[in-house]
Amino acid sequence: MSRIAARRRVTRLTVGGLVSSRADFLAVEEPLEIRVFGRSLAVTMRTPGNDIELAAGFLVSEGVIHHAEHFTTARYCAGVRAPTDVRTVIQLGLPEQPPSPTGEPSAGLPDEGNTYNVLDVTLAPGVAPPDPSLERNFYTTSSCGLCGKASIEAVHTNSHYTVAEDQLTIDAEMLATFPDLLRAQQAVFDRTGGLHAAALFDGNTGEMLVLREDVGRHNAVDKVVGWAMMNDRLPARNCVLMVSGRASFELTQKALMAGIPMLTAVSAPSSLAAELATDAGLTLVGFLRGQSMVIYSRPDRITNDSNPSSTPELAPQRTIEKVAPL
Amino acid sequence: MSRIAARRRVTRLTVGGLVSSRADFLAVEEPLEIRVFGRSLAVTMRTPGNDIELAAGFLVSEGVIHHAEHFTTARYCAGVRAPTDVRTVIQLGLPEQPPSPTGEPSAGLPDEGNTYNVLDVTLAPGVAPPDPSLERNFYTTSSCGLCGKASIEAVHTNSHYTVAEDQLTIDAEMLATFPDLLRAQQAVFDRTGGLHAAALFDGNTGEMLVLREDVGRHNAVDKVVGWAMMNDRLPARNCVLMVSGRASFELTQKALMAGIPMLTAVSAPSSLAAELATDAGLTLVGFLRGQSMVIYSRPDRITNDSNPSSTPELAPQRTIEKVAPL
Repeated sequence: MSRIAARRRVTRLTVGGLVSSRADFLAVEEPLEIRVFGRSLAVTMRTPGNDIELAAGFLVSEGVIHHAEHFTTARYCAGVRAPTDVRTVIQLGLPEQPPSPTGEPSAGLPDEGNTYNVLDVTLAPGVAPPDPSLERNFYTTSSCGLCGKASIEAVHTNSHYTVAEDQLTIDAEMLATFPDLLRAQQAVFDRTGGLHAAALFDGNTGEMLVLREDVGRHNAVDKVVGWAMMNDRLPARNCVLMVSGRASFELTQKALMAGIPMLTAVSAPSSLAAELATDAGLTLVGFLRGQSMVIYSRPDRITNDSNPSSTPELAPQRTIEKVAPL
Repeated sequence: MSRIAARRRVTRLTVGGLVSSRADFLAVEEPLEIRVFGRSLAVTMRTPGNDIELAAGFLVSEGVIHHAEHFTTARYCAGVRAPTDVRTVIQLGLPEQPPSPTGEPSAGLPDEGNTYNVLDVTLAPGVAPPDPSLERNFYTTSSCGLCGKASIEAVHTNSHYTVAEDQLTIDAEMLATFPDLLRAQQAVFDRTGGLHAAALFDGNTGEMLVLREDVGRHNAVDKVVGWAMMNDRLPARNCVLMVSGRASFELTQKALMAGIPMLTAVSAPSSLAAELATDAGLTLVGFLRGQSMVIYSRPDRITNDSNPSSTPELAPQRTIEKVAPL
C-alpha cells in the first residue's frame, strides 16, 4: 500500500440489481503538523507526499517567507512530544526523499516511532518566526472590524509581491487547453476519484511546470507554491495557477502571496475571491471548461486571437445573410 | 444585494467566438469569528446566514456541547476589539433574525460598526469553555504520535454519542432518491454554481429535515448539526447526513459527534474517513449517483429489497442460457 492511495475492500450496490464486494483505491488522508523551530504552527489533513513543499508553500501563503534561502532544513520528527528526536533531515535544495511504503526512512535507519506526519522547519538567520496565532491575525488585524474588506487589506499588508503590473497576456485558445492537461496528469485521481489538483503553467509557452494532488485543495496549492519557491521561481511572473475545483478567497490569497498574476478554476469563484482579485489586479477565471470561460477580473490579460470575427457582434448578421438567398 | 449571493459584472468568452459582458451571481464568502464568553475560538470563511447554527454545530463537532440547553445566547458584536458592544442579542430557541440587506440589524437600531461577522456565544453554567487550541489538541492528544490512528482515537475520546448500535436500516432505493432531493433544494447553487450543500434526512421516511449551503463544506455540515442541536434532535438517531461533494475525515467526525449513523456523499471518501467510519460503526456511502453507490463500512444497514433476483450472482448464468439456443 502506498501512502498516496490505499487499497480497501468495498461493497458496490446497484438499486434492484447486483451487490458485489471488490477492492478499490482511496485517496490517503493523514494529519501533518508543521512546526517552525520546534514550535507547532498548524495541523492540516493532507495526502502524504511533497510535505516539504507543503510546509514551504504554507509559509509563503502566510507571509513568513518568500525565497528559497529563507528556509534551511526540514526534519520529520518522531513522536509529537519529541521535536529533537530527528530521524530524517532533509537539506533543502535536494530532491525530497519520500518515505518508503513501510513508513521507514529511505536511508534504512531504525525508526520505531516516526509517523512522517510531523515536519519541523528551520528558517534562515534574520527571518522572523511566525506568530503562533497566524491565521486569526490574518483575518482580524484591520481596525474596521472583521469583514471581507479587512481580509483583503490583510493580504496586501502581508504580501511581498504585487501582480497588478505583471505583463502576462495569454490567448484564450491556450488557456482552454489547461483543464485537459491538468486532468491527463491527475494520476491519483484516476485511481481514487478523491483528490483535488493544482498546477502551475508557463503563460508564455503553455507548458505545465508542476502538478500536485491532495485531499485538500489548499494543500495542493501550497505544494505548488512550495515547489515554485524551492525552485527559485518566486514571484511566479507570467505564470497561471489552475485548480480543479472552485476558487475561494484563500486560494486567491495563495496565488497573490506567490506573485502569480492569473488564477483559473474549473468551477465557480466566491464573491470574496473576485473582490480580492479585482483589488490586487489578478486575473481570475472560472468555469474554464471546453471552449468557454468566465472572467471575473482583469480580462485585458486574455486575448482571443483565434476569433474569426474581429467584431464578434457581427456574427449573427452574417448568419442572416447566408440564410437570405434560400 | 443579498448576503448569500452577490451580483457582479463578468466577461464571458468563447474561444474564437463571442466575448460578452453580463451580470452574474457569485456565492458570498465572508469571515466569521466564533467567540465563547468573548474569547476568540475560530475564524472560518463562510457564506453568511444561519450563523448561530454554524457556531452551535462547530461547538458540537469539537465536543464542547451536545445539547440545546448548553448554549444560552449568541450575540453579533460590533468591531473585533469591542466584544461587549453588543448590538444584536439572539435568545436561542427563537428563529434566527437574519441581518437586513443593508447590513443593519433588523430591529432598526443605529449601528455603524457591525459587520455581522463576529458571533459571541455564552454557554450554560457548568459547561466547560473550550480550550483555545482546540483543533490542534483534537489531532495531537494521543501518545502514539500524530497519525490517522491517533486522530480516530481523539474522536472517540471527545464524542458524547456512539452510533455502532443505531438500529437504522434503509433501502437502497430510498437512499438513491437523496441526491435529487438535495439538488432540487440547492437554491443558491443554482444561481452561483459555487456552494456546497449538506442535508439531514429521516432514515425511516426519507424526508429531508434540513438543508444548508455554504462555500465551505465543513460549514454546511456544521449548520446542519447546529440546526439538529437547536431542535433537540441530538443524537440524530435513524438519520442520514448527505453531502454534495467528497467525504473527508473531518466530515465523518462531525457526523459522529452528532450521533448520526450514516454519511453519504456524491463523490469519493478519503482513506481516513473510511477508517474512522469502520472503527466507529458508522455507515459510509460514496459515489451515490443515479442507481448506484459504493459502501465503505457497515453495509448491513442498507437493504436492497427492490432487487428482482434474490441471488444476484445467478444473473450472468441466465444470460448464457439465453444465448445458448442460437
